[in-house]
Amino acid sequence: MSEKLRVGIIWGSAKSDTETMQHAGRALRTLGLEFKRDYEEREISAHRTTQKMIEYAHQAEERGLQVIIAGAGGSAHLPGMVASETTIPVLGVAITDSPDTLNRALGSMIGMPEGRPLATFQGKAGAFNAGLYAVRILALNDPTLREAYRAYQEDQEIESTMRDEKLSEIGSEAYLLEPKQ
Amino acid sequence: MSEKLRVGIIWGSAKSDTETMQHAGRALRTLGLEFKRDYEEREISAHRTTQKMIEYAHQAEERGLQVIIAGAGGSAHLPGMVASETTIPVLGVAITDSPDTLNRALGSMIGMPEGRPLATFQGKAGAFNAGLYAVRILALNDPTLREAYRAYQEDQEIESTMRDEKLSEIGSEAYLLEPKQ
Amino acid sequence: MSEKLRVGIIWGSAKSDTETMQHAGRALRTLGLEFKRDYEEREISAHRTTQKMIEYAHQAEERGLQVIIAGAGGSAHLPGMVASETTIPVLGVAITDSPDTLNRALGSMIGMPEGRPLATFQGKAGAFNAGLYAVRILALNDPTLREAYRAYQEDQEIESTMRDEKLSEIGSEAYLLEPKQ
Amino acid sequence: MSEKLRVGIIWGSAKSDTETMQHAGRALRTLGLEFKRDYEEREISAHRTTQKMIEYAHQAEERGLQVIIAGAGGSAHLPGMVASETTIPVLGVAITDSPDTLNRALGSMIGMPEGRPLATFQGKAGAFNAGLYAVRILALNDPTLREAYRAYQEDQEIESTMRDEKLSEIGSEAYLLEPKQ
Amino acid sequence: MSEKLRVGIIWGSAKSDTETMQHAGRALRTLGLEFKRDYEEREISAHRTTQKMIEYAHQAEERGLQVIIAGAGGSAHLPGMVASETTIPVLGVAITDSPDTLNRALGSMIGMPEGRPLATFQGKAGAFNAGLYAVRILALNDPTLREAYRAYQEDQEIESTMRDEKLSEIGSEAYLLEPKQ
Amino acid sequence: MSEKLRVGIIWGSAKSDTETMQHAGRALRTLGLEFKRDYEEREISAHRTTQKMIEYAHQAEERGLQVIIAGAGGSAHLPGMVASETTIPVLGVAITDSPDTLNRALGSMIGMPEGRPLATFQGKAGAFNAGLYAVRILALNDPTLREAYRAYQEDQEIESTMRDEKLSEIGSEAYLLEPKQ
Amino acid sequence: MSEKLRVGIIWGSAKSDTETMQHAGRALRTLGLEFKRDYEEREISAHRTTQKMIEYAHQAEERGLQVIIAGAGGSAHLPGMVASETTIPVLGVAITDSPDTLNRALGSMIGMPEGRPLATFQGKAGAFNAGLYAVRILALNDPTLREAYRAYQEDQEIESTMRDEKLSEIGSEAYLLEPKQ
Amino acid sequence: MSEKLRVGIIWGSAKSDTETMQHAGRALRTLGLEFKRDYEEREISAHRTTQKMIEYAHQAEERGLQVIIAGAGGSAHLPGMVASETTIPVLGVAITDSPDTLNRALGSMIGMPEGRPLATFQGKAGAFNAGLYAVRILALNDPTLREAYRAYQEDQEIESTMRDEKLSEIGSEAYLLEPKQ
Repeated sequence: MSEKLRVGIIWGSAKSDTETMQHAGRALRTLGLEFKRDYEEREISAHRTTQKMIEYAHQAEERGLQVIIAGAGGSAHLPGMVASETTIPVLGVAITDSPDTLNRALGSMIGMPEGRPLATFQGKAGAFNAGLYAVRILALNDPTLREAYRAYQEDQEIESTMRDEKLSEIGSEAYLLEPKQ
Repeated sequence: MSEKLRVGIIWGSAKSDTETMQHAGRALRTLGLEFKRDYEEREISAHRTTQKMIEYAHQAEERGLQVIIAGAGGSAHLPGMVASETTIPVLGVAITDSPDTLNRALGSMIGMPEGRPLATFQGKAGAFNAGLYAVRILALNDPTLREAYRAYQEDQEIESTMRDEKLSEIGSEAYLLEPKQ
Repeated sequence: MSEKLRVGIIWGSAKSDTETMQHAGRALRTLGLEFKRDYEEREISAHRTTQKMIEYAHQAEERGLQVIIAGAGGSAHLPGMVASETTIPVLGVAITDSPDTLNRALGSMIGMPEGRPLATFQGKAGAFNAGLYAVRILALNDPTLREAYRAYQEDQEIESTMRDEKLSEIGSEAYLLEPKQ
Repeated sequence: MSEKLRVGIIWGSAKSDTETMQHAGRALRTLGLEFKRDYEEREISAHRTTQKMIEYAHQAEERGLQVIIAGAGGSAHLPGMVASETTIPVLGVAITDSPDTLNRALGSMIGMPEGRPLATFQGKAGAFNAGLYAVRILALNDPTLREAYRAYQEDQEIESTMRDEKLSEIGSEAYLLEPKQ
Repeated sequence: MSEKLRVGIIWGSAKSDTETMQHAGRALRTLGLEFKRDYEEREISAHRTTQKMIEYAHQAEERGLQVIIAGAGGSAHLPGMVASETTIPVLGVAITDSPDTLNRALGSMIGMPEGRPLATFQGKAGAFNAGLYAVRILALNDPTLREAYRAYQEDQEIESTMRDEKLSEIGSEAYLLEPKQ
Repeated sequence: MSEKLRVGIIWGSAKSDTETMQHAGRALRTLGLEFKRDYEEREISAHRTTQKMIEYAHQAEERGLQVIIAGAGGSAHLPGMVASETTIPVLGVAITDSPDTLNRALGSMIGMPEGRPLATFQGKAGAFNAGLYAVRILALNDPTLREAYRAYQEDQEIESTMRDEKLSEIGSEAYLLEPKQ
Repeated sequence: MSEKLRVGIIWGSAKSDTETMQHAGRALRTLGLEFKRDYEEREISAHRTTQKMIEYAHQAEERGLQVIIAGAGGSAHLPGMVASETTIPVLGVAITDSPDTLNRALGSMIGMPEGRPLATFQGKAGAFNAGLYAVRILALNDPTLREAYRAYQEDQEIESTMRDEKLSEIGSEAYLLEPKQ
Repeated sequence: MSEKLRVGIIWGSAKSDTETMQHAGRALRTLGLEFKRDYEEREISAHRTTQKMIEYAHQAEERGLQVIIAGAGGSAHLPGMVASETTIPVLGVAITDSPDTLNRALGSMIGMPEGRPLATFQGKAGAFNAGLYAVRILALNDPTLREAYRAYQEDQEIESTMRDEKLSEIGSEAYLLEPKQ
């Protein structure tokens, strides 16, 4: 694995958003990447620090970043604005707090105009998956990382098979009483 | 009425959006304001001309603008971004084209974070009303304009009363056959 | 700053709505305005005290009010009715209680007919932002207030920058363990 | 059947709303009531003719009206405002034009606060049914009208039975080619 | 006030639905009606006791009932089925439990076909309002009841005015600390 | 294949619903079943012919029907009511006409209470699939029918493969100009 | 009742999904079927164990399964994928966790393309009903099971009648204070 | 630019879906890539050709594909299933035909479980943007392509500026009468 800052994870201001976005970094670490060595975490606010946001986007390429993961809730302008001001792939994570019946953050990302592409993910599982997705992109040119990724997917299959054996043996009612693994 | 550029109407790129946003200017003209003298119309794209958008917002105050009406569809970042980069009131118009079941543009505006206020309107009637709303703001310091506005509201009442007389006389079925007034 | 009642904040009847609407006043106080001196808070119910509502709207202008912030949940008729009976700018706050999948209050405000403009905000952040928005309007003719507003926006930027330094230094996991600031 | 103005049908301003609301009167006529003798049709706008709306509601009872059918689209304040200012039953018809994904008019009616009851119907079928519902209320004290209503319901059953015979005989494909009855 | 069973309140099976539907009876009692003397409460299930439901609807008129209030959640067939099998006014209450993003019960009532009218209400406030609405219907032929109803509405206005005085005096922050009245 | 009436297809009253429900019969015929010999088509209205609906459900089993396909739009009570009054499998088809943002028919079916099962399908493709699903049930005891079903699925795979060859050869732009097959 | 594995209940991976899917087995046991003798419970993940999923579907018929009940949340691909790879009836259960305003699992099942039928159920009540529905299918060729099913439905009617007697006697307020039965 | 098949564009069966998915290829060609040389277009159906789908996913990496763009409507299982069976980045395009109020395809993609990442796009603009996004990924290791991409973004800015000059000069009303460019 190359050792250089390759992924930037950025999100708005609210501490509560951090509860969602921390899962992106967790995914990267699961695949062997490290905080500060391989990826950074930054607070970038589209509305409060607009100029900083634009500079971050403009410098991303020359800084060697290969992917930006940008999370936002509510009006959720950050991911789309960053995607518009850079040429590297941007993964947007729509942070969904308690029942937002308008799906505001999702709508704000999925409706990008023709010409400014943004890949969209949603929620905590989405933040984690955005991390995995970043690894898929990096792995296109990093055989070691690809191997790690393949192993990760196979582990998931094995774990599922083991749970299946337990469930089919004892049934759902007993299974629910089992201590969480 | 003072004669100076006081209202900026801006929107994205698609010609089709113009069909909604022209109603903002129509409202201003209905109240006696004039294109180029009292208000301007500009194409400002949050995603394609980001730097121009920010400059427009930064210069609005010193240019003497008192209100900005910003329309956008889809991801609809323009109004919120402009609202964040200026201190004058910004009216956002969520452009709703054919059935957008996520209400993307509306969600992208109504969810602005605490600290960055944006007033939201929706659709063609909303674009027209945003124009009227701008007049209400200008009229706070323009007695002539306030008079014009008051007369406009009274005219609407009179027209409604006249239609009422017709309807109550001939009934809905015959009323529907009347030529449009 | 001029010292005269300039903003009226009104809402329906339920005490629970007060939990949302108090944030409008909080925003005004953040910018230096004072309860009773610069703004008032009133219970005005569109359905229970209809006549009082209409009188409030009719007298707003001659009382010198420059902005009305009107909050309502459910059917949410108050803001639109008041907007129709006055000529000064009205800011409607759609109070969203627990999961209202019809977005009733929002729909009841955002759908105002052509000719009767109402600016719409939503939720607690929206109530606060409506307060800030009122300040933007007042500041058009109050340079001292505009200065205060500018300083407020810059403070937000500074706070964001400080949080960014912390986050980028310690990472999201450690950041979540920090005591709330 | 008593012969006196017993039902008031009112709606906003747009001619297009008339296309929905005419069905309320059609229902009344189907049951033998007559325009101007038994029911009236009026344009009453909550936003443009607020004072007229309130007077209409206040006088409804002493004028002998027993039911008011009020239709509105968009923000749809009319039915709820009228219901709040009278003591006779009010039937609200949510006028739903082309895809309104927020269900604005419906939400604006169905969310009336405790203490101000409004019965809600939706769309063209709802306007017709509101007319039938008014007849059900009148029929509580009008045996002749109740007889007419009973006959109407039985006719519908007979017509359904006849269509059933045709369909079960020739099948759906042939049935679709039949001229409309 | 006449003393005879005039209102039937019916709902499905779940005890939890009772938490919503009890408010219909509470409204009746608020206006002076009494359980068992003026109104009854029955468990009628459209799906579990279909035949009983139909008999209830068929006998309603001859038993002297003037209004049926029918509540249901989920698929919510009861109100519409009862409305189809009687000729007296039926008020449907859509019981909305925790976040039902499909608005199932509401949709199941508001979409009744032309020819089978059902008045729709929603939630706990709706159940209470359905009770009030039943009183409005009864009051058309019961002057004493109408007086009681008028007094009820005026009381609400007075209470609102008293709360307004408090709020405008102490402000929202202090108001929230007041003990609930 | 046994030759006996095994499937009942029923729906409400509107001729327009027939446009959706005809696809259920089409699916049956695709698999070799015949109208009147293997399946029937009936107009059964939950609201207009309630008693007939109940009798139909009660007699279904003794008549030898093994599956009922019931379609309905709007309030859509028919499928759930029939499912409650029989013990054989009922397939409900939610008929979705032009933009019904409440998904009324779907909600009215998918929310059946515990104890009264109804399988739900939606739209024209759903009507066709309900027909196929009925065949799957019948095929459990009809080896000839199962063979026919298997062949049908394989044909679909072959057709897809042929289209794939064309598309990958000429590309999507040319493919769209091809005459429809 | 025949004694052979006739029903397969399968679902994804999350233990939390088990809380919904256990109700399918509970329904089967309510009707006299037994775990491992009449039905099995398996963890099959569409995304983690794709090959196992396909084999399960392919072998279902020759293993003698007559119905598969497949539950899934989120993207919810399992039920539709299994339905496509077998010829026996598949019942899909859309697992709805806390407020999923997109109704993701439901949409992912109800939108199956023409040619690949899947019967859809939703939530915990839906999981139970899917179990009952499986019994309805099995009962087509199992008179003993059909008798058990009929008795089950009649028991529900009796229980409802008993609750009705209590409720109509003591009223809803007292009824709510009763200990849960 | 390297000349080797690097992008696979796949979608289901309906010819109508081709109208959306052709825009992905159009984006690639806009940036200089060629059909058959740089990218392929294939019909792969998750439900009709399941085995082919899985093989396609399994072989993608060894065939040298770096990105797969997968489009689907309705239940939309294809993109998520392919993403689960490969390790290269998959871009899902939710094909949204006429008003799908459940947002079925979008929900089916955005809800992927933790561990199986899928990047989501929506509609025709989304198909085009997915093409652009694929270029962003390829460009990480293809400087020539990155140059082409940068030029493309700058062209869009220039075009916007030119339209702005026209609009601000002639105003929206005249602008709408201009022939489309």
